[in-house]
Amino acid sequence: MLSEFELIARYFSRPLAPDSRTALGVGDDCALMMPAPGMQLAISSDMLVSGRHFFPDADPLALGHKCLAVNLSDLAAMGAKPIAFTLALALPEADPEWLAPFANGMLALADRHGCELIGGDTTKGPLTISITVFGEVPSQQALRRDAARAGDDIWISGSLGDARLALAGYRNELTLSDHELLQAAPRMHEPTPRVELGIALRGIAHAAIDISDGLAGDLGHILQRSNLGATLDADALPPGNVLQQRELELRRRFTLNGGDDYELCFTAPVRLRHAVEKAAHAAGVEVARVGTMEHASGLRIVDAGGEPLQLELGSFDHFRS
Amino acid sequence: MLSEFELIARYFSRPLAPDSRTALGVGDDCALMMPAPGMQLAISSDMLVSGRHFFPDADPLALGHKCLAVNLSDLAAMGAKPIAFTLALALPEADPEWLAPFANGMLALADRHGCELIGGDTTKGPLTISITVFGEVPSQQALRRDAARAGDDIWISGSLGDARLALAGYRNELTLSDHELLQAAPRMHEPTPRVELGIALRGIAHAAIDISDGLAGDLGHILQRSNLGATLDADALPPGNVLQQRELELRRRFTLNGGDDYELCFTAPVRLRHAVEKAAHAAGVEVARVGTMEHASGLRIVDAGGEPLQLELGSFDHFRS
Repeated sequence: MLSEFELIARYFSRPLAPDSRTALGVGDDCALMMPAPGMQLAISSDMLVSGRHFFPDADPLALGHKCLAVNLSDLAAMGAKPIAFTLALALPEADPEWLAPFANGMLALADRHGCELIGGDTTKGPLTISITVFGEVPSQQALRRDAARAGDDIWISGSLGDARLALAGYRNELTLSDHELLQAAPRMHEPTPRVELGIALRGIAHAAIDISDGLAGDLGHILQRSNLGATLDADALPPGNVLQQRELELRRRFTLNGGDDYELCFTAPVRLRHAVEKAAHAAGVEVARVGTMEHASGLRIVDAGGEPLQLELGSFDHFRS
Repeated sequence: MLSEFELIARYFSRPLAPDSRTALGVGDDCALMMPAPGMQLAISSDMLVSGRHFFPDADPLALGHKCLAVNLSDLAAMGAKPIAFTLALALPEADPEWLAPFANGMLALADRHGCELIGGDTTKGPLTISITVFGEVPSQQALRRDAARAGDDIWISGSLGDARLALAGYRNELTLSDHELLQAAPRMHEPTPRVELGIALRGIAHAAIDISDGLAGDLGHILQRSNLGATLDADALPPGNVLQQRELELRRRFTLNGGDDYELCFTAPVRLRHAVEKAAHAAGVEVARVGTMEHASGLRIVDAGGEPLQLELGSFDHFRS
């Protein structure tokens, strides 16, 4: 059995990069870090619990990726560039067969974004992963939820609903072919945080949020904080490759309310449509224009013809479901 | 049942202070923060698990205090001034009877140190509390574990062992009178982070660590990181008020190896003894000189007469005990 200190040293200690913002990493009471001059530090914390956010037998490589990805997605939604993270980990046992791939999955994604592991904590307990992530964004350029304006276009990156479709397959809510599940599962297990897009949207987008609990609910946070309403065209929402093959009603339900997508929903002025498309192209991701911010409060969902739809919606809530 | 968002709003959202370093707090994808110019950010994460770090029926007011206190203690050990923290919380249920006192205990301590709650996460799950805390320390003045020098005095703040004595009482390892338990218990349940002392020791102390897993083990981290050894006078260690009444062998064992003390162990040059005492006086805490840093590796423990002691020691390890 590895000790706590051996465990940290073996799987999670690495030398800091020469250009690191971090003066001191894993192994002291605190890490020491200094954001670049003129930069604000964006900070987000997430906690993932076994059996709730992931299956107890989840592939540790994918899980390591996903735990960091959902945090990087929060940075992306602020337009912040990842610089560092801390990891607090409760584990039933210090099993190298699990820890090595878990660390590899996490650190591979971290390396891709130049995001250094600078500290954390490990303890025995029910498998729980809590990450706090740090990014940099120039002062006044953060994409805040309260910054949408009436008349803004509403945009969505990538596609929606395949993560939810995979979950429906695992839960036997729907029957998926092996091929469908194989295609949809990576959207659930290994989401791609839209970090480059978030950075590219600085100075272009007004407000942004990442879609973790379902578009309708998450867009609701922008509405609430910006004190506005919106109309969303349900048939403009981009379904994932697998969901695209399914019937209209399911497409609407899972794109609007799926959860676990980790795409960006953002608002931008109509006059900057071309700039949005250029930013998305530079970031290598598709974007779709799906609605409009409005003064009238509430979220109105319409079909391609502009007719109102009555859909049973509601964001995922950890204490209600 | 409260929803996740109502829960955050009701118990954990408060307006930011006018002089806050924080530009944006709870309620967006990320918090936004800017350390003062010339300041390094000190960052520490801790995770506390029910049944391991605290009893499942622990008083929520004291627990709220303790969870933040152990993190502030890490800042103290760097000489950093607390500015903000994030809280990730897994709860079996959103019970107001538990949440209100928990939040009160935590936020009362936070207010005492001007440390703002700027974000976090709540989810359903086995009771687990993960805090990441942020402090400021002037560049080059942090009290690092690797900065001790041979010849330095070793100092301890406050007193040691009463937290361990209370635990021994709860576990029936020892019989404590009601009066003894009443006196010792607050040292276990409501530790006092030595924040003011840590700040006062900037420019005076070389290295510091907070004593969470027992002095011998924690001092071992300074030895290892500074590549030095030490001699410790077991009989110079200041026992807590209750432990002081107990026999010599227990005093030695619990002061050297007790755990949960959250005192500071720090090293400072001999010529700065007076400055150490002045700093401690200003911070309102006693300090005791208990040993010497040496070139010869290893930790030597001696009695008041300088005779070597053979003691069964070992720091607390979450995956070994």
